[in-house]
Order: sequence, then structure tokens, then C-alpha cells
Amino acid sequence: MKNTFGNSVAVTLFGESHGEAVGAVLDGMAPGIEIDEELIARQMRLRRGTDSLSTARREEDKVRFLSGVRAGKTTGTPICMIIANRNQNSADYAVKDGAPMIRPGHADLTGWIKYRGFNDPAGGGHFSGRITAGLVAAGAVALSALKECGVKIGTHILSCAGIKDAGFDPVDPEKQIEELCGKEFAVLDESAGEKMKEAILAAREDLDSVGGVLETAVTGLPAGVGEPWFDTVEGELSHALFSIPAVKGVEFGKGFALADMMGSKANDPFRMKGSMITTETNNCGGILGGITNGMPVIFRTAVKPTPSIYKKQKTVLIDKGEDTEIEIKGRHDPAIVHRARVVQDSVSALVLCDLLSVRYGTDFPFILAKK
Amino acid sequence: MKNTFGNSVAVTLFGESHGEAVGAVLDGMAPGIEIDEELIARQMRLRRGTDSLSTARREEDKVRFLSGVRAGKTTGTPICMIIANRNQNSADYAVKDGAPMIRPGHADLTGWIKYRGFNDPAGGGHFSGRITAGLVAAGAVALSALKECGVKIGTHILSCAGIKDAGFDPVDPEKQIEELCGKEFAVLDESAGEKMKEAILAAREDLDSVGGVLETAVTGLPAGVGEPWFDTVEGELSHALFSIPAVKGVEFGKGFALADMMGSKANDPFRMKGSMITTETNNCGGILGGITNGMPVIFRTAVKPTPSIYKKQKTVLIDKGEDTEIEIKGRHDPAIVHRARVVQDSVSALVLCDLLSVRYGTDFPFILAKK
Amino acid sequence: MKNTFGNSVAVTLFGESHGEAVGAVLDGMAPGIEIDEELIARQMRLRRGTDSLSTARREEDKVRFLSGVRAGKTTGTPICMIIANRNQNSADYAVKDGAPMIRPGHADLTGWIKYRGFNDPAGGGHFSGRITAGLVAAGAVALSALKECGVKIGTHILSCAGIKDAGFDPVDPEKQIEELCGKEFAVLDESAGEKMKEAILAAREDLDSVGGVLETAVTGLPAGVGEPWFDTVEGELSHALFSIPAVKGVEFGKGFALADMMGSKANDPFRMKGSMITTETNNCGGILGGITNGMPVIFRTAVKPTPSIYKKQKTVLIDKGEDTEIEIKGRHDPAIVHRARVVQDSVSALVLCDLLSVRYGTDFPFILAKK
Amino acid sequence: MKNTFGNSVAVTLFGESHGEAVGAVLDGMAPGIEIDEELIARQMRLRRGTDSLSTARREEDKVRFLSGVRAGKTTGTPICMIIANRNQNSADYAVKDGAPMIRPGHADLTGWIKYRGFNDPAGGGHFSGRITAGLVAAGAVALSALKECGVKIGTHILSCAGIKDAGFDPVDPEKQIEELCGKEFAVLDESAGEKMKEAILAAREDLDSVGGVLETAVTGLPAGVGEPWFDTVEGELSHALFSIPAVKGVEFGKGFALADMMGSKANDPFRMKGSMITTETNNCGGILGGITNGMPVIFRTAVKPTPSIYKKQKTVLIDKGEDTEIEIKGRHDPAIVHRARVVQDSVSALVLCDLLSVRYGTDFPFILAKK
Repeated sequence: MKNTFGNSVAVTLFGESHGEAVGAVLDGMAPGIEIDEELIARQMRLRRGTDSLSTARREEDKVRFLSGVRAGKTTGTPICMIIANRNQNSADYAVKDGAPMIRPGHADLTGWIKYRGFNDPAGGGHFSGRITAGLVAAGAVALSALKECGVKIGTHILSCAGIKDAGFDPVDPEKQIEELCGKEFAVLDESAGEKMKEAILAAREDLDSVGGVLETAVTGLPAGVGEPWFDTVEGELSHALFSIPAVKGVEFGKGFALADMMGSKANDPFRMKGSMITTETNNCGGILGGITNGMPVIFRTAVKPTPSIYKKQKTVLIDKGEDTEIEIKGRHDPAIVHRARVVQDSVSALVLCDLLSVRYGTDFPFILAKK
Repeated sequence: MKNTFGNSVAVTLFGESHGEAVGAVLDGMAPGIEIDEELIARQMRLRRGTDSLSTARREEDKVRFLSGVRAGKTTGTPICMIIANRNQNSADYAVKDGAPMIRPGHADLTGWIKYRGFNDPAGGGHFSGRITAGLVAAGAVALSALKECGVKIGTHILSCAGIKDAGFDPVDPEKQIEELCGKEFAVLDESAGEKMKEAILAAREDLDSVGGVLETAVTGLPAGVGEPWFDTVEGELSHALFSIPAVKGVEFGKGFALADMMGSKANDPFRMKGSMITTETNNCGGILGGITNGMPVIFRTAVKPTPSIYKKQKTVLIDKGEDTEIEIKGRHDPAIVHRARVVQDSVSALVLCDLLSVRYGTDFPFILAKK
Repeated sequence: MKNTFGNSVAVTLFGESHGEAVGAVLDGMAPGIEIDEELIARQMRLRRGTDSLSTARREEDKVRFLSGVRAGKTTGTPICMIIANRNQNSADYAVKDGAPMIRPGHADLTGWIKYRGFNDPAGGGHFSGRITAGLVAAGAVALSALKECGVKIGTHILSCAGIKDAGFDPVDPEKQIEELCGKEFAVLDESAGEKMKEAILAAREDLDSVGGVLETAVTGLPAGVGEPWFDTVEGELSHALFSIPAVKGVEFGKGFALADMMGSKANDPFRMKGSMITTETNNCGGILGGITNGMPVIFRTAVKPTPSIYKKQKTVLIDKGEDTEIEIKGRHDPAIVHRARVVQDSVSALVLCDLLSVRYGTDFPFILAKK
Repeated sequence: MKNTFGNSVAVTLFGESHGEAVGAVLDGMAPGIEIDEELIARQMRLRRGTDSLSTARREEDKVRFLSGVRAGKTTGTPICMIIANRNQNSADYAVKDGAPMIRPGHADLTGWIKYRGFNDPAGGGHFSGRITAGLVAAGAVALSALKECGVKIGTHILSCAGIKDAGFDPVDPEKQIEELCGKEFAVLDESAGEKMKEAILAAREDLDSVGGVLETAVTGLPAGVGEPWFDTVEGELSHALFSIPAVKGVEFGKGFALADMMGSKANDPFRMKGSMITTETNNCGGILGGITNGMPVIFRTAVKPTPSIYKKQKTVLIDKGEDTEIEIKGRHDPAIVHRARVVQDSVSALVLCDLLSVRYGTDFPFILAKK
């Protein structure tokens, strides 16, 4: 359904980088969920990035609720959230002689072909990372719904510019999730974080950019959620995660590393832990046959390096069909992985709310809280 | 939508491993597409596996068309395809003392929880790889539709048990796709293939199993297909690819390797090639901003080792809540990666037909053929 | 989604009138619902019609479950049901000189245009009323799910050939629903039924056909089901009801009669009945703002007269673009309204299961039964 | 999908009567469609009603485009339209002693149950007719897309308070559609219109309200659009039409009148008209087997009388479970049928764009214009 995702809890995104506002409509969210202004402000701030590593563009990023909220709680009807664009600087991304600039690694060309030249090219238009502001706003509401029923989500930068963070404890990551919560630059091992920051600054110095890997852990999900075919937990999550700009890979549990393992090592042995069925390892990432098994859900995304770099690059003039070169101006981050992390939390929260709503009905946060 | 996938061209799967039949309903396929009996038979045979590496279970796997076909062509109305299960041997997978066996790495536990014990546990029931027979049958029709408009798909075993095949030429894989077409064990480098087979047989000897990585290339796709948010080409493909049993990771272009690259290396430079806009490299896998750019679409999946191994494994008795051990009997493959390859072709063909139908309408194969 | 309907409980239809089989896939149905063979057989028999009023075509109409059923109960996985076509007589509906006959009132022309001549014209192909066999089979399972939570559905012939039956008691139709249950020719007033039958036989005598109005009542639905916009109870039901061949109108409560009423008469006054909020009248048909109010849901469909009549009719030769005349041969009912009634029950049951599953989750029959 | 409708061209509604703004997101609309400011302003004005018959509430109803428009044309990306609420007067609809007033004929009760008391009751909240402002704004864009390919839509008040207008010429209504275009009170026979207005004013005098029937005609639709099962043209249109507040019935062609006709009269005879296949009559409303036949599509809706009347009415106190009486204050129309007419045009335009986009692809307006 194009710019709408979800079967029961659905989010619709709209906006362009240099338009009046970006935003989202969140539909199907249970009534009675607290709108946690502080959480929303924090998530918006983390998405924006406030430190020296992030773009010079500074938006206030106040989320305005046009509908669906009353007395600080969700009403159950569609929630339209908008975030004004105040700091546009279209000249930075100007069209060159009437034709859009075709930046390598960007959607300039594909957008121009798909929309036959009618789309807004400024700042990437509807393809801009700016659109994730709506996603993060909606995700913050989803996080509050999940909190109601004890589901926790955390994401950290597992690697950046080739430097590795410590990993999640795959069978018990809850404390690590809590640790990550308020962090601006989300790593488990601070010394690795410092090295990553240095590498990011070095890339900037070099007019270049770096990418990384984001790892997410989810605890508190009941077993039995997801479908065997198509609407598997992996399928639903990956479908949405690939909307995070720059994500080019998604893996669950041990992911690609499983390809080289023997079955006897890859299979997670089942063990009783009191009256609960658990697994000793969690190579499957908490999902078997597309369905949660009650263990933490663990996944990783590959984030490509920011395509906007200051180095001269080869490109074409689409109106003339000629080769040319381009030098990108304006404000651009040498890395977005630390900011994408909060988008990953948000997307995950939205997808999980949808899966839980399909399984337990539209009042799922309260149904599960009682269990 | 659970066991149905697709917006315009949609496939619905049904069946259990040891039921009467498995199958699929393919809806929304353009009328006038040839039903290529030979192609279907070949695909079914490749899925089944015929050599010494594959399961002892031998099904004739004749696809019976109950509807939607007339005079050897699709009618445009829903195509119901069924494949009889003839060689069931339920005793092999018997429930133990009334409670289902919980095999590590399988969906036995998650299925039992989700369906509250009512699902069919024999041979994995609806979770069985057997269900992919319907997917391959439907995919064969999709492949014929794509052939009509010049789209080609090929998948090979990029690695198995740690042994690597040669990779696709990311900017021009067409000849390699053709080469792979009839191969039983789909590798580009036959000597690598021989080593893989040895490793598979060694794993069997050791009562163990191995996994691998499957790489797919698609040529002939027009630029401008896919959506910027949610229904990205990556999102749609990955959603469906994670339904291939044992797939735990999906990556596009350079995928996870992009995380360690610098932006200046990761960005694909644009160049004119005659009147066509191409890229010199194809690190993005033919997709920018979720939309095809006209270059080959390249992606890889991580296939975990077959969970059915003959070694003794730890598990639990779900009725008693006690730890126990299990030794799996019956016929099981030490690897499924070589058989999963044809499933990957099939799933990809179905998703691409859907994306093209959304973009160009329900007669897309003929609309595009004329262009 | 074309031939699939439903968000959480979804049905997919397939088959052609003179193909090998027709059928349905019912997906998302709660596990543990009894497969009531007797109910299924009765519904199939009522759909077929057994008396002198109905078509000479006699099908055994045994429903074969290919999947999704175990030990007489639903497993929760997709249920594929097929019904063999045994009594085809294609010659009766032969294509004339290579081009399909274009019967007035039928889908011969529109099907031929939509499917560019590739569809199966014999007996109406995929447009045939025969396809409702799959719908009735799936509906019988849905009826069993609703029975589990106390929801009852009944449909009667409110009018046929201008003769009127007694109407449902709009605030308390439960006894009337039960009365209708086993009836071959479903009327509340048997004397009206006799006159209807006479009118039907008179129409046959005259080589003509008659239509009618079907009225449905549903009791036991909880209040609060449905959505304010788009997925209103009226919207969802009507969407599916218009798939019953020959239905050309749908109205809820007093329906079109409301257009001529004053607001003071049309509004249903609220009154307490013990601790329950009820309405004194039920002009809104149990639905306000698209959502159930706890009163019986009442609706009616307009069924046009059977288009197959033996009188000579004007039509065209599509291959030559010339006017011509047609005389339809073969076996055709002078009325289908009495058979369509069981289809209406079935469609309604499927839609209501979907709405309840969206609201209360996939185990809704058992969740509601406990309440 | 709850508050979103459409498969390829989809609209999502949000807002509450007394919230900050109402609006819609229109997704999947072809790029390059003109944003006709004049048309939008006219449609908004007609929805609002400006004459003595309509509510005292006066909104400027300026549509603000937050996204999806560039240089006066659609970009192809989601169009978010908002309309500010300026003239709220919440006190008029105050909650009584903390509990919402339960107005007969309104969604006050059903909304309160569905949303467990968290929804906004003021002015009907998300159930208010005010929400149709977003629908009309989105519909105006859809009308421009249809204009591009020659599809015309017109709706008139076929009856109001029992007074009948002249009907559409079912085989050639194009001139009548054009006549209706600018009319404030859309009737074909002005003298009937005058009588209707008198009846509306008389109802107001009597503290009561009236309803009516709206009839729509669509010309220029190609044959072959729609699906045989579920996504029939009737099913898709009715699904959306029942979202127009107060609509309780939908019929196509002769609709309920067909129930009393003989088949020989009901069937539309086919005749060649030059090289075009036409029907002499149009009892089927341009739809056979769920698919357009190239003739005008004709349908009618039953609009119940406005539920807000000034007469004393019976209701209940939901917090105490007691009977009580209510006298509604504030500004309310004695009829909405003349304003609902433009909503019907809008909804129809949106659904038809969706059906055409599914059939011909996302660029359908330009594809069809070329044909």
C-alpha cells in the first residue's frame, strides 16, 4: 500500500525535505495510550542529532498533534502528527540549469523517472531522511503502547567505519537496552564509541562518509506472534526496516553468520527455566517459523555510508544525456548511523504494535498487560 | 494478510506436509500468459532435488491446475494449483505420547503456541518446506509472465559450508543467469560446487547439516519501479524472501559490506552508455531510494543449516514442562540451500510481477513488451 | 485485493463453472473451530437447491478439505476447500463460431473485454454462480466460529416476484432466525412462500425469470465493532455482498425508506433494558457511525431476476461487430433468490468473523465466549 | 484498513470536529495532475453549504497542501491536505456532568464503547460530518485526474422529504452531469428543487429534519474495469459510499426496483452503435459481473434524515445506566442531503481513480488519455 504500512496499526508518511511540513498519520492505535511528550521530544532530538557529528541543519522539530489525542491520551482514532520545516535552504540543493542534479547514491534519478520529473528534487524531496521525523513521532506513540504491556526495544551501533561495539547478550539483553535508552551516541562499549566518533570526524576531514551496522533487541514479546508464510515476524520487520534510508541489509539472530555454521551449533537447545520454555542460545533471534518463541528478538541492519559527500563525483546531465561531474554543497553528515538508530527503534515499535494488534485485537496493550 | 502476499498479483499458500495436498492460488496474473509445462516440471524437479544430496522422500510433484487456465494460457482469473502429497510417512514424525515433539530450530514450539495445539505437527505441518511446492508452481507462471517482457532471474549458491562460489558480475550478469538456468546444483564455478557437495556429504556423515548464501540477479527491469517508503523494492522482496524456510538474512547490492565502506567507494558513479543512464559499479544492487534504477537487481539471502539433524539434541516435553533429549528420525537433507535456490527464483518472480503490475497495470507483460 | 476479501479472516475464491473444481481458501480462521460436516452438507444442499424450482444441474457438492483441518477442527492455518464439478455440459453454453455468446444481463461481454478474450466463457466461467459453492463452504466454517461466541445469522426471502413475506422483528429476530434455519425455501410466512413458488413456476412457463429481496438478521454481536470511516460495518458487508451474483442493492435498517422519514421518526430512542442499553426501534439496523450498537444487525439485498431466460433476446456478435439475436439453451433457474439466501448467510458470516478478529484478535470466538 | 481506503490510489482521513484541523492524505495519485484551486474552493463551498438551509457554522475551509504538490501539480508522492477548524464551539456539545451525551441516531454511544471513553465526543469528534472536508479536498484532486482522461461524475438530489427530482437519462446523462456542475442545490428539475427547499424549511420550523436519495452518474469509464469477486465496481464503490455519514443504502442501475422486474425487462439488450457495443437500456447501471461495460455507471444512496433535531428525545445516562431525555442545542441542519451530494462525487472519484490505477497502472490518467 505504498506510503502506508501495517494491517491493524498502520502508519502513513508524507512530506518533502523542503516543503512546509513533514508528518505521519498513525491509525488503529489503541485508545488510552499516554502521549509522553518527554519521550517524543527525546526521540526527535536523538533523530536530529545534536552533537558535532551531525548536520548543521537545526530544526526545532516540535511534533504537533492535529488529531487523535485528547487529555494527553490517544483517542483510538487516527493521529495526525506534523513537524514543520523551518530551516529549509533550497538553494543548497538547487536544480542545475532547470534539470535536477543527479547525485550518486541518492534517489534523484529514480525519483525523477518514477514521477516523470514532477517530484520535488530539493533536498531529496519525499526521499529525504527528513521524512523519518514523522516515523519517529509515530514510533514514540508505539513505544508508549509497548511500554504498557512490558515490551522493551533498544538499538545500538554495533559497528561504524569498521570499529565494533560489544554485542547484545542474545538471551538476556534487558539491562543493555535500558543502558542505551538516553544515550546520544548509542554504544554499549564507550571506548568503541569514542573510536567511532574519531573515524566519523576523520571521514569528514577527508570529504568522505562512513556507514555501520545497527543492532536491535526486543524483550517482553509473547510467544506465538507472527505468521508462518509471508507475514512472518522477519518479513514484516524487514519490509519496514528497508524504508530507513541507507539500510541495505537485514538479518535476524546470527543472520549471515548462520550460513557458515553447522546445524548442531545453529539450533538453539530448548531448556525449562522454571515454568518457562527458553533456549540456551538465541541464534534464531527469537523467531522460529516466522513466529516469536518468547526469547528476545534480535536483528541487525546494514547502513550504507551517507551518499552526500563533498568529493567530486561522476554523474550525468539527464536533460542532455551527457556525462559530467558533481560537487555537492550544503550541510551533510559524514555518518547517519547514530541518528538512524532511533529511526530503527521507531520502525520496530510500529511493526510490533501491528503484529500484536493482529494477534490480540485493537486493545492489545491492555489485554497483554492483564495477562 | 497472513498467507497471502501481493497487492495486484497475489499468491495464497495452503497445505500441510502430510496432508492430502499442498498448493497455491495465484490471483491477478495477466491473461494470456503461457503455461509452460516443461518449465513448471523443471522447477518442481529442482525444488525437490533429485541427486544424492537430497531427501529420500520422492514425490511426483505433478502440478494440477484446478482453475484459471484455458487452452494452455492464463485466463486472468485465479489460478489454483495443487500438488498431491503421495509419500507421506507420518510415523516418522510421530507425536510422542500425545504431545508434539519439539525439535530445536523448528517451528514445532511456536506453531503449537500460536495455534494452541490445534495445528498439524506431522512433518512440520504448514511450516514444512513442502509448502514451497505451491510457491514454486506459482512462481513458474510468474517467470513466464516476466519472460514475456524480457525480465530474467537467476540464483546461485554463493557459499555453502563456508565454500565460496564465484559471484555475479553486478553490472552485467545476464550470461551468468542463462548459464545457471538448467543446473541441478547451481554454481557459477563448478569446482567450488564439487567442494560444496563434498562438504554436504561430510556433514551427513557426521549426522549434521550445513547452510549457505544464495545470490540472485535480475535483469531487464525498467527503472522507476517501487515506492520510496514501505513498499520499496527491498521491502517487498525481503518481506517475501523471509518466507523461504531457513532464510535469516537478506541484503541488496553490497549489503552488509557497505557498512565498512567509505561513501566515495560505495556510491555508484553514473555514466551514459549510449542513450542509457548506467552506473559503473552496482553497489546499491540496482535500487536507489527503494526504486529500480535500470541496472541489474542483486540480492543475497542467508540460509541457516537444516534444523533436522540426527545428533541427539536438548529439548523439552511441553505437556510436562520437563527437560529431555531428542533424536530425530526419518529422511532429512544435510543441506537445503541448493533446493531453496529455485524457491528464491520463484518468490522473486512473484514479487516482481506484483511490483510491475502496480506500476503498469494488470496487463503489464504486454504493455512492457511493446515498449 | 481482487479475489481475496478480509483483513484478518480472509477468503480467496477460485474456479470456473465448467472447470475441474471450484473452491476457496479460508485464511486466518481461529484454530479449534469444529468442522461441522452436517452443517456444511446442509448449506451446500441449500445453495444447490433440490426442489422443482432449481436448475436441472445436479452436483454432489461434497466439500473436500485439502488443508487446515485436523481431527475435525480447524488448525488455524489456511483451509483449502474444493468442490468438484461433475456435471458439466459445456456444449450447452458453446461458443458460437469461435466467438463467445454475449448473453444480456451476464458478464460475457465484460469478462471478454477485461481478460482480452482469454477467460473461460463456458457457463460464465469464473463469473458463474457456481463459484459461490466455495463461498458457502467457507461460510459454513465461519458460521461455526460465530456459533462458538453466540452470534446467529438468518436470511429470508422478503419478496419475490412482487410477493412480500413477513419481515424480521427488528429488535428481537432471534426466534425467527431459528425458524428459518432448516428451511429449503426460506420465508417467515409460508403462505407467502407458496405464492412466490407459484410466481416462479409461472415465470418459467413464460420462458422468463423473477428476482427478489433477501433480508438478513444477525444477533449476538457485541457493541463497538467496525470503524468510523471506510471499514464501517455497512461498508465491509456491502463490499462482500455485492459479490453475490445478481445483487444490485444493499440497505441497512430501514434503508431507502429512511430517505422519506422525518428525523424524529428515524432516530432510534435509547432505553435501558436491565443493565443493557437498547433502542426501542431499530431503524439504523444495529449500526451507528459504522459501528455495532449491540442491537440486531439487519440488512437487505436486491437480487435481480436471473439473466438466463429462454426468450429470444437482442445481442451482438463481438467478432463481427454486428447486431444479432440469441436464444439461450441449457438448464437455468427462473429464480435464484431462494438459493442466493444461503450465499448471503455465508458472506455475512465471513465478513463478521473478519470484523470480530480485527477487534478481538485471532482467537476471537473463544475470547468472546468467555466474556 | 480502517481509516485508509484504496489499493493503488488510497486516501487516509483524520481529524475531529472540534480539533485543530481535519484532513486527508492522498497517496498513489499519478504525478502531473493539476491542482485546480478553483475547483477545490468550489467543492469545499458546496460541501459547507452557503444558503439558508445549512448550518450556521461558517468555516473558511481553505485547503492547505502540506506535501505532494509542486508548481501547481501533483508530484506523485503523498498529498497531505489540512483544513483548519476555526469556528469550534465546544460548549454547544458539552459533556453532561462528565459523561458524554448520547444523542439518538448519532455515534455517541458506539464511539464511546469502541474507544472505551477515550475518544473526543465534542461535536461527534472523528464521526462528525466535518471529517468529509478532507474527503472532498482529496476528491477534488481525484476529479482532476479523471478529467484528464475524460471521465465525468455528477450527483443530484433524486428525492428529498418525499419530493422527487427528474432522473438521469441512464444511457446518456452527460449533459445532465454538466448542468449540475455549478449548482448549489443540485436538482435537474428546479421546480422540484423549490419544493424540496420548502419541505426542508418546514422541517426546521417543526424542530425536525429530513433525508433523501442521491443519484450519481459517471460517463467516460472504459469497459473492463473491476473484478468478478469482492473487488467488483459495486463492492468498491459501496464500501466507500457507506462512509458518507447518514448513508444507509446503496443501489446500482435499477437497484431494488430490479427485484420486482421480470428478467426479460431487466436484461439490457446489446446493440451496436457504430463500432461501439452499447445497451438499449441501462438497468444494470453500467456494471455486469462486477465490471464496467462501457455504459454510464449509475447508482443511488439513501441518506437518512439528520439525526440532530431540536425535539426532546429519549436517551440514557451511560454513567448511571438510567433513562433520561435530551434536548439538542447548537447549530444543526434540517437536511444534509444537498451538502452530502458533493461528498458523494468526491468518494466516487477517489474509488474510480483507484480502480483505474489498478487496471492501467499508476499513470492511468495519461495512459487512458492517449487511447
